[in-house]
Amino acid sequence: MKVIADLCLVPLGVGVSVSEYIAACEKVLQEAGLVTRLHAYGTNIEGEWDAVFAAIKRCHEVVHQMGAPRITSSLRFGTRTDREQSMNDKVESVKRRLSPHGEE
Amino acid sequence: MKVIADLCLVPLGVGVSVSEYIAACEKVLQEAGLVTRLHAYGTNIEGEWDAVFAAIKRCHEVVHQMGAPRITSSLRFGTRTDREQSMNDKVESVKRRLSPHGEE
Amino acid sequence: MKVIADLCLVPLGVGVSVSEYIAACEKVLQEAGLVTRLHAYGTNIEGEWDAVFAAIKRCHEVVHQMGAPRITSSLRFGTRTDREQSMNDKVESVKRRLSPHGEE
Amino acid sequence: MKVIADLCLVPLGVGVSVSEYIAACEKVLQEAGLVTRLHAYGTNIEGEWDAVFAAIKRCHEVVHQMGAPRITSSLRFGTRTDREQSMNDKVESVKRRLSPHGEE
Repeated sequence: MKVIADLCLVPLGVGVSVSEYIAACEKVLQEAGLVTRLHAYGTNIEGEWDAVFAAIKRCHEVVHQMGAPRITSSLRFGTRTDREQSMNDKVESVKRRLSPHGEE
Repeated sequence: MKVIADLCLVPLGVGVSVSEYIAACEKVLQEAGLVTRLHAYGTNIEGEWDAVFAAIKRCHEVVHQMGAPRITSSLRFGTRTDREQSMNDKVESVKRRLSPHGEE
Repeated sequence: MKVIADLCLVPLGVGVSVSEYIAACEKVLQEAGLVTRLHAYGTNIEGEWDAVFAAIKRCHEVVHQMGAPRITSSLRFGTRTDREQSMNDKVESVKRRLSPHGEE
Repeated sequence: MKVIADLCLVPLGVGVSVSEYIAACEKVLQEAGLVTRLHAYGTNIEGEWDAVFAAIKRCHEVVHQMGAPRITSSLRFGTRTDREQSMNDKVESVKRRLSPHGEE
């Protein structure tokens, strides 16, 4: 089962600057061979269910190892059985409708 | 690693009434032996990481089997290494502060 | 427009214990006259759109005034035009399906 | 009060294809003069609190007018009082740490 997810991980107890921890998660996700895309409030992730969720677990483990005593994450994730759809397909299907000739 | 999570699963392509699918997920979570608590916009879930996420995967599988071609879920999940904390502890620590003598 | 929402507010830069800030938000929501229900990973809120979102803004203001330099919140919120539905209705419609004679 | 938000709006009761509704929301957000960035599981939005939340309300109104009887949205939103930070700053502060010479 393929999944498209969006992860926003928030370490607590380490002050207000969290980019160091987010960067460590990016590395974890990339080393897992997943397709990812960082944005301003999370990271899009695409892959097989088990690979995606194993990498998310690893993110929590790594951020705790870096010293964060508490982590709260928010995740969106979607699956579909009607057809294959990539992260890129999702963005393109909206953008097509926004372009001048998009609604033909 | 223990996790406290909050799952809101939304089946698409099955009309506006989704309680049948949510009830099926409740059964999946209970059969997995997890501590759960249904509320008006999701379900609190407490347990070991692997058990919680295996049950969430099973929810997606079951809801697809019931006929939903597409599912989008939103999940919050938290882990901590500083101390044990149950779902009940979380609610009680806030309620204590709200009671008249709560802030001693 | 009525809305049912679920707010999970996370103050950053104030350590790992956040119940004091969550309790302050509960007071804000109750003083706004909204129907609320605290759970282990957020708070259900029911009311008119403008009242609900004014109270959520007030939560951020109050938590900043309490000393949190940064806040990240996650919110679910739903509206419907087909019929009225309360937070209680949502929970009951699932519970009915879980009871032995619920699926008649 | 400035806010950086991330909106994922899901219309129910209109089938599995929702890009038409998401495109309508993009137009609402852009017409409101907000800085936005579409990604595969939502849209980043940056602006003054009242402008951002007025536009989000408008999104729900417009999607209902387009025929969706029910909408569920998930929103992340953050505020900070310690310093100004744009959506771009957030992404750049992570990317700097991922580049070979990023951690000086």
